[in-house]
This record gives sequence, C-alpha cells and structure tokens, in this order.
Amino acid sequence: MKKGSKISNAVIKRLPRYRRYLNELKRKGVDKISSRELSDLIGYTASQIRQDLNNFGGFGQQGYGYNVEALYNEISSILGLDKEYKMVIVGAGNLGQAIANHTSYYKAGFVVCSLFEVNPKLVGIKINDIDVRDCEELVPYIEDNSIDIGIICTTKDAAQEVADKMSFAGVKGIWNFAAVDLEVPETVAVENVHLSDGLHSLAYHINRNHYFE
Amino acid sequence: MKKGSKISNAVIKRLPRYRRYLNELKRKGVDKISSRELSDLIGYTASQIRQDLNNFGGFGQQGYGYNVEALYNEISSILGLDKEYKMVIVGAGNLGQAIANHTSYYKAGFVVCSLFEVNPKLVGIKINDIDVRDCEELVPYIEDNSIDIGIICTTKDAAQEVADKMSFAGVKGIWNFAAVDLEVPETVAVENVHLSDGLHSLAYHINRNHYFE
Repeated sequence: MKKGSKISNAVIKRLPRYRRYLNELKRKGVDKISSRELSDLIGYTASQIRQDLNNFGGFGQQGYGYNVEALYNEISSILGLDKEYKMVIVGAGNLGQAIANHTSYYKAGFVVCSLFEVNPKLVGIKINDIDVRDCEELVPYIEDNSIDIGIICTTKDAAQEVADKMSFAGVKGIWNFAAVDLEVPETVAVENVHLSDGLHSLAYHINRNHYFE
Repeated sequence: MKKGSKISNAVIKRLPRYRRYLNELKRKGVDKISSRELSDLIGYTASQIRQDLNNFGGFGQQGYGYNVEALYNEISSILGLDKEYKMVIVGAGNLGQAIANHTSYYKAGFVVCSLFEVNPKLVGIKINDIDVRDCEELVPYIEDNSIDIGIICTTKDAAQEVADKMSFAGVKGIWNFAAVDLEVPETVAVENVHLSDGLHSLAYHINRNHYFE
C-alpha cells in the first residue's frame, strides 16, 4: 500500500471477499487473473475491481492481469491478517458456543482465550477446551491478558453494558452479534453482524427465481 | 420498480442495509432525507446512493430528498419482505439452535418449521418449541410442507449432500452457513454466510486505529 494513503471503508469491506476468491484461485494453481475474469467470479464490475485494487498499486499490468499470490499476500497484510489477535466472547449461549467451536478462526490467527457468562449454570464449564468465566471477571481478564477483540453474543439489552466494559478495559475492536447499535469511544472499532441482510437478499432472489452467487 | 428492469446483484446486496437505516429513521420520526445525509449515515457515497435508488425511480426529488417511509416500503416490497417464507434448518448444533431461537426472524415473515439432525441424541427434542427430526425425513418434509428456504448449519463435509436433498425436494433458496461453495440447480438461489469477512475488516480497523461504523 502507498504510504499515508487512506482506503475508504467501503473498499475495506470488500477486501475480505477479494481475499477469499484469490485464496480459492491460489488453491487451484491459478497464477494470474484479469479484472474481467475476477469480475465474473466475484460479481463486482471490472472497473470497480480495477479502481479498488489501484489503491494498493503495482499489481495489475495491462494485458497481463493481476498476480494472484502477490495480491493475496498484499490484501492479507493490509487487513492485518499476518498478526495474532486475542479475543474473548461474552455470552456463552448457543451463538457464543458456536463461535468458540469454530476452530478455523484459530488457524487464521484469531484466538478465543475465554468466554464470559452471567448464567451460573454455565460459569465454570469448558467449551472447546476454553473456560467459561463469570462476567464479573471480564474487565480484569481483558486488562491482564491484553485482549484485542471482544465478541458480543448477549441479548440486545445487555450489549451496551458489555461494550462499555470491554472499551473501558482496553479492547481495540468489538465484533457485535447483538442487533443493536453500540456507542463506543472513537478508539474502539466496531463490526456489526447483520445476519438478516443475507436472508433478505435471498428473499429477493427467490421471488425473481434468478440464479446468483 | 420499473416493470421489466433488472437490478444488479450488487445493488440487491445493498438493499437490506438501506432498509435497516430507513427503518431506524422511521422509528426516529424522520420523514425525508437527502442522499448526502444518507451517505453520512450508511457510508456509501451520495452518488452511489442516488444511482442505487434510481433503479426504483420516483422517490428522490431535487432539493427535497427521499421520502423515508415510501422508500422503506418500496425496498421491502422489492426484496419480497411483504410475504411469508417457510424454512427448515439442517444441523441442530449450536449454530442451528441459535438460529432457531432467533425469534426476530418470525416477526419478519421467516418461519422455522422444523430442524433436522443426524445425531440421534438430538432427534426428537424441541428447540424454541420446534421439533428436531431425523435427517432421513428431510425430503418428504420439504415436499409435504412446501418449504421455501433451507438453512444449512452442518459441517463442511455434509453440506453438499444436504444441498442436493433440499434442491431435489424443491426449496427455492438455501442460506448456507457451511464454509463451502455449493453446487445447486440454477433455479435454487444460494446465499453464503461468510462470518470471517467481518472479523477481517475488524482486524484492519484495529491496526489503523480508526473509528468506523
């Protein structure tokens, strides 16, 4: 990436998708790909792709296309996926457990260090070998273990209080599965998960009976 | 929407997001909004927003902006959210249970009719008052109950076989949580959930220490 250049949030949101498709191409042994071929694959227009990838410079060559591996590595590095992140999950219900069990995060450098729960029946158990602790211990645990990311899998009502504690204790980012907009300090990044968006897109395609990605 | 006009998949993917923000504005009693104000809120550029919403026509007026409620209703109708959808979940592990318990889908017209499982310990129990049936019963159940949407919450390895059965039995759409690309007939729409994308965007923002939505 060019030093000091600023990439828009919309582009950042598209990068993980580019990276997924590039990974797939790498696995298939593809060395280079044109913006038009990428367009067919990913579903963005070729001009959008060229514009997006121009942010990093130097990978597309007229008449040659993009070097798949170099572009994959560059995007991974821009996203910060060459580092390790320590995470905690608050809320050890079904969703929190599902995430704790999702071991592919670990391979990608996202390590769940502990879960936290208010329900005394769950405090003290282990999920995927990870301890479930009392929510009272959340702040000191984050401080003592330099946790980077807090994952909120609580109810809507509890989410803001949990976000306040996480922010106070010093997490750098919050991955929020509760359907509520959180207020956090400007130094804390928030990524909201809106599962229903996918279901709503699906409803459109069902009605139109189109095939799509 | 203009009769016969075709909206690109990229626009369709953005509509649920527009709808969420418009719903929030409605709740706050906002009647109209300019593309610039929408841009500040949603994070797309004003010109992108005008271009997207031009697909439906008639809602933006120079110097006035968009009528929030009319635009919300139009987008809901385009997405097909004025109808009811019958769904089944295959895989009654943590993730399947989390979705079955997520009652806000019901209010939005997405009704989970049954779960299906291969694990005999789970077959026969109820989750959120919904029966967990043996996977062997999947095809006749979908046929007999005119199920619209199949939700795949199985392992990667089982997902394609489940998708085959769902497609054979006549679902119109598949909401796929397994991290694998499915092959389905062109008449079946697929929406893949890539949870990690959000985590990867978060990693970027943590490293840049920027505030974002």
